[in-house]
Amino acid sequence: MLEIQGIAVSEGIAFANAYCLMEPDLSFKKVTIVDVPAELKRFKAAVVQSKRELQEIYTIAHTKFGDEEAAIFAAHQLLLEDPEMLAAIEAKIHTGINAEYALDEASKMFIAMFEGIDNVYMQERTADIRDVSKRLLAHLLGVELTDMSHLSSDVIIVAEDLTPSMTAQIDTKYVKGFITDIGGRTSHSAILARTLGIPAIVGTKTATQIIKQGTPIIMDGINGKIILNATPEISQFYVRQQQIQSQLQSEFDQFRSLPSISADGLHVEIAGNIGKPEDVDMITSVGGDGIGLFRTEFLYMERQELPNEEEQFTAYRTVLEKMQGKPTIVRTLDIGGDKNLPYFQLPTEMNPFLGYRAIRICLSHPEMFRTQLRALLRASAFGNLKIMFPMIATLDEFRMAKALLLEEKKLLQNEGFIVSETIEVGIMIEIPSAAMIADLFAKEVDFFSIGTNDLIQYTLATDRMNENVSYLYQPYHPAVLRLIKTVIDAAHHHGKWVGMCGEMAGDEVAIPILLAFGLDEFSMTASSILKTRAQIAKHSQKDLIQHTERILILSTASEVEDYVRKFLLIHD
Amino acid sequence: MLEIQGIAVSEGIAFANAYCLMEPDLSFKKVTIVDVPAELKRFKAAVVQSKRELQEIYTIAHTKFGDEEAAIFAAHQLLLEDPEMLAAIEAKIHTGINAEYALDEASKMFIAMFEGIDNVYMQERTADIRDVSKRLLAHLLGVELTDMSHLSSDVIIVAEDLTPSMTAQIDTKYVKGFITDIGGRTSHSAILARTLGIPAIVGTKTATQIIKQGTPIIMDGINGKIILNATPEISQFYVRQQQIQSQLQSEFDQFRSLPSISADGLHVEIAGNIGKPEDVDMITSVGGDGIGLFRTEFLYMERQELPNEEEQFTAYRTVLEKMQGKPTIVRTLDIGGDKNLPYFQLPTEMNPFLGYRAIRICLSHPEMFRTQLRALLRASAFGNLKIMFPMIATLDEFRMAKALLLEEKKLLQNEGFIVSETIEVGIMIEIPSAAMIADLFAKEVDFFSIGTNDLIQYTLATDRMNENVSYLYQPYHPAVLRLIKTVIDAAHHHGKWVGMCGEMAGDEVAIPILLAFGLDEFSMTASSILKTRAQIAKHSQKDLIQHTERILILSTASEVEDYVRKFLLIHD
Repeated sequence: MLEIQGIAVSEGIAFANAYCLMEPDLSFKKVTIVDVPAELKRFKAAVVQSKRELQEIYTIAHTKFGDEEAAIFAAHQLLLEDPEMLAAIEAKIHTGINAEYALDEASKMFIAMFEGIDNVYMQERTADIRDVSKRLLAHLLGVELTDMSHLSSDVIIVAEDLTPSMTAQIDTKYVKGFITDIGGRTSHSAILARTLGIPAIVGTKTATQIIKQGTPIIMDGINGKIILNATPEISQFYVRQQQIQSQLQSEFDQFRSLPSISADGLHVEIAGNIGKPEDVDMITSVGGDGIGLFRTEFLYMERQELPNEEEQFTAYRTVLEKMQGKPTIVRTLDIGGDKNLPYFQLPTEMNPFLGYRAIRICLSHPEMFRTQLRALLRASAFGNLKIMFPMIATLDEFRMAKALLLEEKKLLQNEGFIVSETIEVGIMIEIPSAAMIADLFAKEVDFFSIGTNDLIQYTLATDRMNENVSYLYQPYHPAVLRLIKTVIDAAHHHGKWVGMCGEMAGDEVAIPILLAFGLDEFSMTASSILKTRAQIAKHSQKDLIQHTERILILSTASEVEDYVRKFLLIHD
Repeated sequence: MLEIQGIAVSEGIAFANAYCLMEPDLSFKKVTIVDVPAELKRFKAAVVQSKRELQEIYTIAHTKFGDEEAAIFAAHQLLLEDPEMLAAIEAKIHTGINAEYALDEASKMFIAMFEGIDNVYMQERTADIRDVSKRLLAHLLGVELTDMSHLSSDVIIVAEDLTPSMTAQIDTKYVKGFITDIGGRTSHSAILARTLGIPAIVGTKTATQIIKQGTPIIMDGINGKIILNATPEISQFYVRQQQIQSQLQSEFDQFRSLPSISADGLHVEIAGNIGKPEDVDMITSVGGDGIGLFRTEFLYMERQELPNEEEQFTAYRTVLEKMQGKPTIVRTLDIGGDKNLPYFQLPTEMNPFLGYRAIRICLSHPEMFRTQLRALLRASAFGNLKIMFPMIATLDEFRMAKALLLEEKKLLQNEGFIVSETIEVGIMIEIPSAAMIADLFAKEVDFFSIGTNDLIQYTLATDRMNENVSYLYQPYHPAVLRLIKTVIDAAHHHGKWVGMCGEMAGDEVAIPILLAFGLDEFSMTASSILKTRAQIAKHSQKDLIQHTERILILSTASEVEDYVRKFLLIHD
């Protein structure tokens, strides 16, 4: 028996054999071919197999994740029909060399050609050529690619990291959890795991080196433990744990259609964070009270030009209609930092997190921003829309953004469009300067949503992605709690409400503090909604409020956590 | 007449002709030589001339800036005596090629050789070889290098940017000011200009393209204006302005030996920021009340290994003795961010300003940190030492740092060293989290020093070096002012004092606000000390205090500035 410790980023317990995602061996030699027609036939067979495989992956990705994620596989299929590409390979086979070598030579030529063109779109196509060539080569060599769509038994995936295109293939019927070498609580794979509701342990550093293909694994996604070749006693322990978890889950399930209400009758809102229109279903299926954060970046990513007003309108309208009048907060474009667009040249920066991003970019590209605002305003007729501006640091920024919104509203109305008269306009509180002057903002905005991920980073001058200083990413740091309290008090003083859409809103230790402080809305990943609703139902806000002053004079994050665990959490 | 606008970073008005620092034309051809002995003679003459020139530059740099800055020119002289280097060039001349070509070939060879060696020290020597080869080549070609030590009339330097080695040669006898294309208030050249007390305008973007060699220039270093070929009226206007400035300067000079005291009798401390022991003289010459920030990085930079305890002790003792009992705050090592050491491998980070730096590095390298603490403790016997830890974000960090200090103190005392019993131990307040819990820190530290440069960056999530967002670097942002007020109130409540060692402490608009808030110590560049003392002498703190509440509810940085200019600044 062997134990590996990692960072628990998605709860749950799983038992299955390891499925190690490794680069397959695709080495080959140059061989002289005598029977050219046979070699051509072999090549064509590989093309047919690859196309069929891609069609399957496309269908799965489309069903599970929608148009956007599936599009890449459609593009790959098209490449396999490209006459120039196919002709180049076949011409080489005609000279008497083997298909593997011919394929490799031809794809290298095309890659070099595309890379030489000064056009981002063409350059990006080289990644597609590489992927498709790899698939063809695998078929020629009879080697299986790590294709998770072909799984037929339960597995726990072990990989260095998971890329978005790999995750597109994850089928939760067989994939019971995953373990990665790198990453943290907010890495792509961690967020995905919580969305899919399967356990995940990341940042193990060594999992891919230690875990052999097929090893029986127990994953303790609550404590971040991975147990290899467990003893019968340990296995039994985890079976019991899994039963307890599943009892808890069915207890949570009872909250699906209940209101979000504390033990002493305080109504709060428990909403969901989404990244795409398709994600709405996950929120409604757990009875979320609304959408607390709809990230609109997906509309701008993985494409070759800015989305037009009509495309955006359709996406926003879809979400609003699906939400059937429940509050839906759409955040305007938040690129920059670590998020780039292939067709939109952003400057290279020494400290991108302290740089040109989000509202800073939108205000200096008003035409792009106006398009999004118009699409949002038009969609407002189809639901309960609230608009939120990210990365606001100064009142001037909010005033400029709101002025553009009002201008576009008037223009649209003159053009005969119906625009809702009750759209609330708010800001993210994720920069310390905005939190510090929340009283001034509260006079002008309709609501705040506290983005704790960034707020904590800036308040502690710590990049949470940087493992050298990630110990300083402290959600319970007294300064963070005081800033949150400042924001809530300022808003309530002016009759405005406050939500939270960072990780912290779904955190067991933070929840009683946030209830004590009077937070109005908690927005989180779909998989946390029921658990949070169940937890809130146990707390009496009146009791919690009495701890407020004591919490605010605690000195360190660990003192805060100890205090909450000792006095505020309710275990039955 | 033509006007160029830039960023005024060092005040004053200057009249002189432009001296454009441009790369000289050092192109040459390969020529076959018949008279080899004559060519060798020509080469040796160039070596002699270069050595003489370097000796002159060395002497000037040494007198003006001391050992550290001059060392590079001594190294260059040594290279010109290197037998291997000289032999390689002469051997090539013997084959019948011209000295220019031989020099170029040989230096390229040596550079390639050094670059191939896996040793930072050897790699850095390639920069020296390049510089020396350039100087030799210029002498061979009879081309003059842009050598500012040979100036014989007043000039205003116009350059893309100024590097430390260029600035080492600046002679304020002739250099009346400088203008650069790039840079901002806190760039190297801006800080240097204020240290030298000459006007500087940076960030003009186009100065080097527009200004021709020898053009008559008027520099308005107060408003950031550069006037080319001024009309007689404009010239007269600036002559009058210069007279007013010079009257002001002599008015300031009267404050050299006066105490730092407000019109209504409040004593504050006006101290200086220094980077090297030699800088102490500039502070004492203007009657500074102490050293508010002694940056110790210089001890670690431009060398090949960590400085040992003895070297550090000598440097700290020198400063303390020169200060003759006046308070001297030494900041412990603050590397990382944009400051690296050649021999100390720091990780490459996505956001170095939010990364592994300062106290974070010191606490994870306790041996290195202990050496500095020991040197400081031993030096404490020779003056009025205060120790300050930078980049403190949590109480835990301060407690750990202080525990190491107390451990080393006990060890030193056991070894028989004398250690002062009255050393104050404080922290920089430059991270929002520390400002927000200043009340908790105030119970444990002896003093705070607010580092506004970083505090503003983090509070507004803005990298001030990034020109895309530098407009958000707002010292008067209400959030920044509120944080400063929070810190001062918390400290005073616990009987502790608060200083400020960022740019803001010497800022005309900030000073009345800081007086109103009750700041105890203002630490700044030497050239601002007298002006600040003169300004403080005019203000009545009692009057200013009455504006405090109104200032704290202003909405934006520009409202704050307008308010101060309208109601608080005193112009006679």
